[in-house]
Amino acid sequence: MTSITHQSPSSTSSLPSIEFSRDQPALRELLDYTTELAHLGRAAGLLAWDQQTQMPVGGVEMRGAVKATLAGVIHEREAAPHFGVLVARAEAALADAPERFTDADRAIVRDARRHFDTATKLPESFVRAFVAANTRGWSAWKAAREAKQFALFAPALKELVDLSRQRAAYLDSTTEPYAVLFDLFEPGMPLAECRTILDRVREATVPLLKRISAAPQIDTRVIQGRFPENQQMAIAKTMLGVIGYRFENGRMDLAAHPFESSMGSPYDVRVTTRYNYRDVGRVIMPPIHEGGHALYEQGIDPALAGTMLAHGTSLGLHESQSRGWENMIGRSPAFWQAHFAKVQAAFPGAFDHVTVAEFVRALNAVEPQPIRVEADELTYNLHIIIRFELEQALINGHLEVDQVRDAWNQKYHDYLGVDPIDDAEGVLQDIHWSYGNFGYFSTYSLGNFYAAQFVATLRQAFPDLDERLARGETSFIREWQREHIHRYGSIYRAGDLCERVTGERLNPDHFIQYVTTKYENLYGLNH
Amino acid sequence: MTSITHQSPSSTSSLPSIEFSRDQPALRELLDYTTELAHLGRAAGLLAWDQQTQMPVGGVEMRGAVKATLAGVIHEREAAPHFGVLVARAEAALADAPERFTDADRAIVRDARRHFDTATKLPESFVRAFVAANTRGWSAWKAAREAKQFALFAPALKELVDLSRQRAAYLDSTTEPYAVLFDLFEPGMPLAECRTILDRVREATVPLLKRISAAPQIDTRVIQGRFPENQQMAIAKTMLGVIGYRFENGRMDLAAHPFESSMGSPYDVRVTTRYNYRDVGRVIMPPIHEGGHALYEQGIDPALAGTMLAHGTSLGLHESQSRGWENMIGRSPAFWQAHFAKVQAAFPGAFDHVTVAEFVRALNAVEPQPIRVEADELTYNLHIIIRFELEQALINGHLEVDQVRDAWNQKYHDYLGVDPIDDAEGVLQDIHWSYGNFGYFSTYSLGNFYAAQFVATLRQAFPDLDERLARGETSFIREWQREHIHRYGSIYRAGDLCERVTGERLNPDHFIQYVTTKYENLYGLNH
Repeated sequence: MTSITHQSPSSTSSLPSIEFSRDQPALRELLDYTTELAHLGRAAGLLAWDQQTQMPVGGVEMRGAVKATLAGVIHEREAAPHFGVLVARAEAALADAPERFTDADRAIVRDARRHFDTATKLPESFVRAFVAANTRGWSAWKAAREAKQFALFAPALKELVDLSRQRAAYLDSTTEPYAVLFDLFEPGMPLAECRTILDRVREATVPLLKRISAAPQIDTRVIQGRFPENQQMAIAKTMLGVIGYRFENGRMDLAAHPFESSMGSPYDVRVTTRYNYRDVGRVIMPPIHEGGHALYEQGIDPALAGTMLAHGTSLGLHESQSRGWENMIGRSPAFWQAHFAKVQAAFPGAFDHVTVAEFVRALNAVEPQPIRVEADELTYNLHIIIRFELEQALINGHLEVDQVRDAWNQKYHDYLGVDPIDDAEGVLQDIHWSYGNFGYFSTYSLGNFYAAQFVATLRQAFPDLDERLARGETSFIREWQREHIHRYGSIYRAGDLCERVTGERLNPDHFIQYVTTKYENLYGLNH
Repeated sequence: MTSITHQSPSSTSSLPSIEFSRDQPALRELLDYTTELAHLGRAAGLLAWDQQTQMPVGGVEMRGAVKATLAGVIHEREAAPHFGVLVARAEAALADAPERFTDADRAIVRDARRHFDTATKLPESFVRAFVAANTRGWSAWKAAREAKQFALFAPALKELVDLSRQRAAYLDSTTEPYAVLFDLFEPGMPLAECRTILDRVREATVPLLKRISAAPQIDTRVIQGRFPENQQMAIAKTMLGVIGYRFENGRMDLAAHPFESSMGSPYDVRVTTRYNYRDVGRVIMPPIHEGGHALYEQGIDPALAGTMLAHGTSLGLHESQSRGWENMIGRSPAFWQAHFAKVQAAFPGAFDHVTVAEFVRALNAVEPQPIRVEADELTYNLHIIIRFELEQALINGHLEVDQVRDAWNQKYHDYLGVDPIDDAEGVLQDIHWSYGNFGYFSTYSLGNFYAAQFVATLRQAFPDLDERLARGETSFIREWQREHIHRYGSIYRAGDLCERVTGERLNPDHFIQYVTTKYENLYGLNH
């Protein structure tokens, strides 16, 4: 992506238009072909969304069959020789006269090439074997988790590790296998860069966590209680409204896990939530998190609607939008100065005697424990780093599957100071490996780091950020994000986009400085 | 379908199993291919269901694009030469050794041939022209309806009539054009048979209606009032439960129009309802109607799930299941003897002083008026017959588009004794023609006639039908329907299935006798 020019983060000049060169036949044909592929992907997305939110449980078998057929159709079209011809033609046209093409054109060609190569490099027999291993893997993981015994999952995991190595070799046999897998989830970021970043964060976090653990702990009972369902739904919608989620272009449903799902345009971007009866933080923060994802999709330029570029550019970048709203904005004292009264009003009586300061302290409490999805903002990255380190060792052949459990527990002891009481709250807690997803986890942490860097830039653009938040303003953030990040969909790779927006590539110092300052203040570590 | 043997309607012997001869390679390959086609159709069905029930309005443009892409994929597969080869191979295998194949096998081959022929006989340029004309037609119809001026729709209608004639010629140039179109909606029924049936019903209904109009009219004010939304939703669910709709294998949502939608197996069959604030009949009857459709789909043998046969066998047969439950069971005095208390309980105070007899009389009142979808059980068929007669004249070239409006009004005057005040409540009231759907309407009436014939057979099997209904029993009906009708999905054509179940082909005498007796009693015509 050599055409990137640095753009002042505080620029408010009129936005450059996003367009495709439909007058170029090679581009137009590729755009039409890939747009149809994207449409089919959206149909698959609706089948999944419906399954999570609306479908009666009895429908699961038929839904699986319909999804498999559609996946087959998509794969057939991604691997079609005709698609390869279209990609090659567009590449040739682009090489011939680069000045005739836009950044959006180049991104279509780049992503089309990626889809075609991925689809054609894997032999069909391998794809089938991998899908079958995933099915077995998920069943074994589920049974092992119920029995709380890693040994029941180990054989399936061994098979998945072996197949994932093969998968990497098919895709690019000249590169370290884990780097190939990682690139499937965070395209464009070199593994070495991610490694350096996570190492630095670990080195900063472990000692900070020790200092916090030695300090007086925060009383989190103030956010605990029993909360009626209708009140939970109401406050979830309120919080989505606060950050500027457009309900007229989306909807909120109940699901077993909170998630965001776009139907292909900024005008239909859906979120889900779930109930939590013990902890109001788990009632109000997930909607802000999913709302952050949704604002990204609702902010994509309509010119990209329906195309292959009509989604956030990477898992890490997407997570930066959710984590930024959830943690850096949504857990800040300034934010709750404006909105705590809404929480008090939503749960009559429950928070009458709680101050906003106590509430915010409780929302930000650091409490090392063994479960990733329940982790606080600081320890979360240590959960990720443990997985990232173990995955590399597994895939690159430096760790046997039989040793994973002990290695897991050792790292939890060393980094977090906790010891899982069994495998269910240890090495079996996550679903990802059971589907052969190695390389995914780190994108969650990358999201935290991108978020901190974006917020640092945002603070330069708006030095009065906290005052504005305290007055209840949020639209200036959303507009800034839309202008600099959201509208581009996946035109630019995450690293390049980060550089466009902040003037530098991903730099974990922003995150380290953010958490250090935050927790030193919160826990009075410098007194 | 020569293998049909007559089966006693009251047979309760163990059900013959439904299976496919997967050991026959030609059948297996065709079954796999058509099942994938059916899966893609279900994905399209979900896109439509979601659009009607869940989608934010802003999503409509992208949804249209996704649906169009999926329709294109389905058409491509239906018209693929490879599909033609599979069909021909299966036909040859079937001709070679018919004894090796089941009725389900034969139905797959029959329907596969039909899909392939329909997809390949229409040139792609024609299909595109027809789709474009439909889009124009719908827009013109909408504008004309708002302006209440048929003249604004006439040019688009003329184009649609011409294209529909062409369509018929492409499909089968040796047959009367309207017969070809009619067969698209009610496959297997000769147009002449339908014509004879509708003529007889018209000849019986018009004089009966005159006798009713001369008698003292029924007071329908007892079912009118103002009904809160939550009470409407509750009674709709109650009525679905009464007839035995399985909520665990479906769901009920709000939509602009009530409809039923199956996701491809008996375990996920959904219905919708809408609010009505003036007339409790329009609150409680639509769920019974859609529930009747849903019982059909929920009753299909699981062996057919996902295949091309996993849906009701024709529009008319489907309608017989909804109309049977709605009109012949759901409007009967015996039924309400058991369930009227539920209506009273659902709307506290509203029906305290209404007797069940008054309630049932009001539910069955005959009131000629110009709008089809608001018609009562008796006059409904006259609305259909008018459209059926006009469509034939139009498509066969005996009536010019410019004459349709006057012909419409004349027939409404002659058959129903009503004169539409403008074109919006006259010739422009229905959407069907604007999509080039000529031949569809009559299936609604065929449903009424099939329903009456099935209920007559049901009464032979259960002479104590009314006593059972009055005791609140419904499962015996559902089980009888499942055994004789539902489980077969679309293995048998409607006419053949009717003969299997009742011992004769569709005979409108059952319906004529039913309405004559019913309304003579209700209006005291013989006193």
